[in-house]
Amino acid sequence: MFTILPIKGYIDQIDGFFCDGIHAGLKANNALDLGFIYSDTLCDVEAIFTENKFQAAPLKHYLMYEKDFKTNFVLINSKNANALTGKKGIENINTVFASLPFELTNPIMSSTGVIANPLPVEKIVNGAKTFNLSAKNGENLSKAIMTTDAYSKTSMYEVKLEDGSSFKIGSVAKGAGMINPNLATMLCFICTDAAVPKEDMKEALKLNSQTTFNAISVDGDTSTNDTVLLLTNKKSNAYNKEAFFEALRMVMHDMAMLMVADGEGAKKAVAFEVKNAATYEEAQKAAKALSNSLLVKTALFGEDPNFGRIASTIGASRITCDEDKLIISYNDVIVYKEGEIFFDKEQEAKAASVLQNDKFKIVCDLGVGTYNFTAYGCDLGYKYVEINADYRT
Amino acid sequence: MFTILPIKGYIDQIDGFFCDGIHAGLKANNALDLGFIYSDTLCDVEAIFTENKFQAAPLKHYLMYEKDFKTNFVLINSKNANALTGKKGIENINTVFASLPFELTNPIMSSTGVIANPLPVEKIVNGAKTFNLSAKNGENLSKAIMTTDAYSKTSMYEVKLEDGSSFKIGSVAKGAGMINPNLATMLCFICTDAAVPKEDMKEALKLNSQTTFNAISVDGDTSTNDTVLLLTNKKSNAYNKEAFFEALRMVMHDMAMLMVADGEGAKKAVAFEVKNAATYEEAQKAAKALSNSLLVKTALFGEDPNFGRIASTIGASRITCDEDKLIISYNDVIVYKEGEIFFDKEQEAKAASVLQNDKFKIVCDLGVGTYNFTAYGCDLGYKYVEINADYRT
Repeated sequence: MFTILPIKGYIDQIDGFFCDGIHAGLKANNALDLGFIYSDTLCDVEAIFTENKFQAAPLKHYLMYEKDFKTNFVLINSKNANALTGKKGIENINTVFASLPFELTNPIMSSTGVIANPLPVEKIVNGAKTFNLSAKNGENLSKAIMTTDAYSKTSMYEVKLEDGSSFKIGSVAKGAGMINPNLATMLCFICTDAAVPKEDMKEALKLNSQTTFNAISVDGDTSTNDTVLLLTNKKSNAYNKEAFFEALRMVMHDMAMLMVADGEGAKKAVAFEVKNAATYEEAQKAAKALSNSLLVKTALFGEDPNFGRIASTIGASRITCDEDKLIISYNDVIVYKEGEIFFDKEQEAKAASVLQNDKFKIVCDLGVGTYNFTAYGCDLGYKYVEINADYRT
Repeated sequence: MFTILPIKGYIDQIDGFFCDGIHAGLKANNALDLGFIYSDTLCDVEAIFTENKFQAAPLKHYLMYEKDFKTNFVLINSKNANALTGKKGIENINTVFASLPFELTNPIMSSTGVIANPLPVEKIVNGAKTFNLSAKNGENLSKAIMTTDAYSKTSMYEVKLEDGSSFKIGSVAKGAGMINPNLATMLCFICTDAAVPKEDMKEALKLNSQTTFNAISVDGDTSTNDTVLLLTNKKSNAYNKEAFFEALRMVMHDMAMLMVADGEGAKKAVAFEVKNAATYEEAQKAAKALSNSLLVKTALFGEDPNFGRIASTIGASRITCDEDKLIISYNDVIVYKEGEIFFDKEQEAKAASVLQNDKFKIVCDLGVGTYNFTAYGCDLGYKYVEINADYRT
């Protein structure tokens, strides 16, 4: 038995972790653009990186460290992705770390922003030199890593175990509109003082990414910089595998849902539940096809219960399906069932009223098997076009 | 030797083919919504249909005819797709044809519009009863089959062979914004009086679809109704295989390009050339990924030479690539070459001026093999959202 309680604040609530964010001159208007996470003891670290073939320089830099390395420092900048920057991109990271007046062990860099621009080394060094490593200013860090995010993203829990011991786990993240084929970067930094064994870190990250970050982005169709980092300082002696896995899942789920809801102008967070598919892969494929369909996303924006587009997207997703077995509903309002259309004026009005909510689910029961998957997505409206038509300036 | 000359007019320019379009009450404001193609002799027919699992009723109805059937009539309606309508959808087509006062042999129906609405049989029958089968009114037909199309689409050629004989081939089509994942329907009706053998019809359609319709829509990710029909009455005794294949390719290419340029508010028609890929499939995959990327499409709308998004999309498309071999250019303006960014202010201005054109190409030379593929796409702006947010009304 264990209890997981949400707590206020940022990752600096966890014993031994320090963080802050400053303005280093990368963004305009004195906006925060450079931040750090510092640990006063060495941390174990595990990461999940993008499957994009063009991994950004910070990812390559990380992967050059020896297996099972420990670290005490993560430097994070926005506005520049340091991607498609070749060997110079990695050299620039080494230059930055060599120029800092702190005792750093295997420091990690993480970047997000415009691709294929040289890293502004001087601004970053000058900014980072002013860091106060004993700051506990999570809010500033959360703002410094934002790009097109409309709001900063954090999640914190305290986990109490049966023996009275406890640990904390929390995260700060950025990411908006990351749903394929958007490819906007997501960065997520998770810290904990749980006494988690190294092998559990990897397993827990991998397992939980399936139903969280991978449910909002199609496998492989990721940006050059996508990163999930898990840092553990083990300052608490508390650990229970089941509790840790569940708390980590909750943190990752919270972050994924905040990203979906912040879908670059999105106003609706929608769960696409595909049920009774022939295989798990097919359930996943169909659910993600729905969450990625432009026609479905614009119909959600228009609050139009155009379920024909839902059916057509399912039919086009190359999975096992049969129009005489399919059931489509908005929340619990059935609009199509096994070859019959339930869509008189009354039913249409009910479906339309579901669509007026900020959150709802669209359920497609394929009726051809026993596998389920839920993908998460959002609507797409004018604001999305506005944000993305001229991102670099 | 042969010559292929564009000629004016519609498919009614071909001996023995008749067509017209009328208002049957499906669309509002007296807009044309029902049309036909009639041949005064029986035609051979070949079709390519959608790979969507939920084939619309007209497609199922067609596939119920015996192999190698001949026909003299195609009835086409807009505003209602007769898709996801089960057995009743097919019964409705039979009811329509049984009610018409014409001598029809294996009549074909083709529909486009909203999915999952019962076919308005009475309106269609009452409208079709007024058809004048000796009309030659291709312009009306081309308008009657439009849905979100901004303009009607036609292409006509006369082919002169070395022996002095000649044949005509032409098409009328509808389709806009059909690029995956949009799934808007494309219908294309091609007529010819060439004396083409049945086996060549199938081969020519299949071969030419690769570089035309399949280059603007991802294989399989098609709507419930997509149809390409080829009708041959063989009234001209002229035939030459090479000439016929090339003329058919030109007709299909014209139609595909008109659809891309009419991409639901699109202002730019863009060719995405992927060169020197490891395999043909990878060239195709990367080119289509570019033409389908929301981030690339919105950057085109914003006339922003954000080539980082192009690189990121290539990297995410799961093909063989290497940032030290990649070359990216807008027309002939190179912006990235083998690990180096060519993007000073001058080069950026040159690239930006390419993007101000209505038509241009984006070239990605992968440098890892010898295979090429060009996909065609368009920009995505506010108008797309406006058109699709509330399509049904």
